[in-house]
Amino acid sequence: MSKPAGDLETVRAYFNTHDQLARQLGIEVVEVAPGRARARMRLEQKHYNGVSVAHGGAIFTLADLAFAAASNTHGTVALAINANISYLKAATAGVLTAEAEELCLTPKLGTYSVRIINEEQETIAVFQGTVYRKKDPLPLREG
Amino acid sequence: MSKPAGDLETVRAYFNTHDQLARQLGIEVVEVAPGRARARMRLEQKHYNGVSVAHGGAIFTLADLAFAAASNTHGTVALAINANISYLKAATAGVLTAEAEELCLTPKLGTYSVRIINEEQETIAVFQGTVYRKKDPLPLREG
Amino acid sequence: MSKPAGDLETVRAYFNTHDQLARQLGIEVVEVAPGRARARMRLEQKHYNGVSVAHGGAIFTLADLAFAAASNTHGTVALAINANISYLKAATAGVLTAEAEELCLTPKLGTYSVRIINEEQETIAVFQGTVYRKKDPLPLREG
Amino acid sequence: MSKPAGDLETVRAYFNTHDQLARQLGIEVVEVAPGRARARMRLEQKHYNGVSVAHGGAIFTLADLAFAAASNTHGTVALAINANISYLKAATAGVLTAEAEELCLTPKLGTYSVRIINEEQETIAVFQGTVYRKKDPLPLREG
Repeated sequence: MSKPAGDLETVRAYFNTHDQLARQLGIEVVEVAPGRARARMRLEQKHYNGVSVAHGGAIFTLADLAFAAASNTHGTVALAINANISYLKAATAGVLTAEAEELCLTPKLGTYSVRIINEEQETIAVFQGTVYRKKDPLPLREG
Repeated sequence: MSKPAGDLETVRAYFNTHDQLARQLGIEVVEVAPGRARARMRLEQKHYNGVSVAHGGAIFTLADLAFAAASNTHGTVALAINANISYLKAATAGVLTAEAEELCLTPKLGTYSVRIINEEQETIAVFQGTVYRKKDPLPLREG
Repeated sequence: MSKPAGDLETVRAYFNTHDQLARQLGIEVVEVAPGRARARMRLEQKHYNGVSVAHGGAIFTLADLAFAAASNTHGTVALAINANISYLKAATAGVLTAEAEELCLTPKLGTYSVRIINEEQETIAVFQGTVYRKKDPLPLREG
Repeated sequence: MSKPAGDLETVRAYFNTHDQLARQLGIEVVEVAPGRARARMRLEQKHYNGVSVAHGGAIFTLADLAFAAASNTHGTVALAINANISYLKAATAGVLTAEAEELCLTPKLGTYSVRIINEEQETIAVFQGTVYRKKDPLPLREG
């Protein structure tokens, strides 16, 4: 049974339950507010590249989850059309956190900035992304 | 025991053996040539987002692997500093392939373009990335 | 009086006549085909930064013109929402050419790749851009 | 005669005097601090595209100037290798301001975020850029 799309807690639960890649990589959406979201990933063996440093793809996916959650807080489906990431600092251990902030929202488009930080609050990567907003309501289901 | 860094087959094997995220996501580097590489990923449940479509993070990681392999074919370590991806078409099943091509190489920097295609040879995403080239030789080890 | 929007020669003339920044910088759209365009700029004093090298902003604007012309060949207005540029090689003299190619077109979005080359056919920059497509017809007027 | 490279006022004056494209487009670097800069452009006819809206290339160039000034405040030459811009809102009149902030600085690389705002303090575009840092001192000359 569907819950109302406006329910932010439902959005958060939706990502944590239904996003298969997030589950696979141990990424959790920990907070959602209108146009904002925060996601978290504790670095493990599986997130590494060949030299035991957090993989660019893992950091991107963490940022992408915060971006997706933030852009899907308005009740309709938002699809990523573009993303840009700059890597600032290597990460090797601990919990990484991605915080997505909405810079702009029109009926059709949304633009977001995401900062990825380590436990020492150092920015390790910055991400900028754009979504296309469909008119379809979010397909929220019970977990 | 180390193999010579110039050995392209060793570079390929290195990514397939030591890159933990690639292993976790079932991504295989299938071909490597100087400044070029091709990687492949068969879509499975674990690559999906919440609506059974290939996750932006999974597609990015596939492209990133081709990019990393291509930029590490010159004998020294190359580190990603920036990447940009545009998503063109949803992918839901089958094998995705990423082909990385070197656009420019200087002693310190390299720029690459990656095209991600589905089995019907349709481009589903395009990726552009830049690496910083260190002087350190690649830490190639026997698989 | 309006000409039919489908007239590619009209699109080309439109950019060359009405785009004020292009005129200011001496950029000419030299060729237009469905989803494709080529623009040209002869380097002069005014395109330089402080060290007599073609300014990143001038190269970007050249690429942007090819991108804009290519994405406006389908009869309706296309607006840039994102662009990414990587600079590969400095340019100091001669004619620069930007060639835009359409990678993807949906009713609402278009994605383009632009290559900027010098007279020696060397790629000096690569550009990737996305447009949002409105339903409004192009406001083509007689030059 | 050269002035000391560390002199921030000299850096600011250098861009305003020697950057030909900035002069051509009426862009002024109004403030410079270590790793930060602010540039300004009053919209005129010459900054427009074909529909009397500020051209993407003009907005990019404004952002690029703030980025260049900010990244050249450390005494050595910094060269742009990549930039990404997202356009959020059309601008048609008044003064646009770009503020560049340093996100990360290593001996070889620097990453910057630039926000472009209109007179109503609305963000009209966001920009992210990376420079490669040479060892050469800035070629600062008397204006």
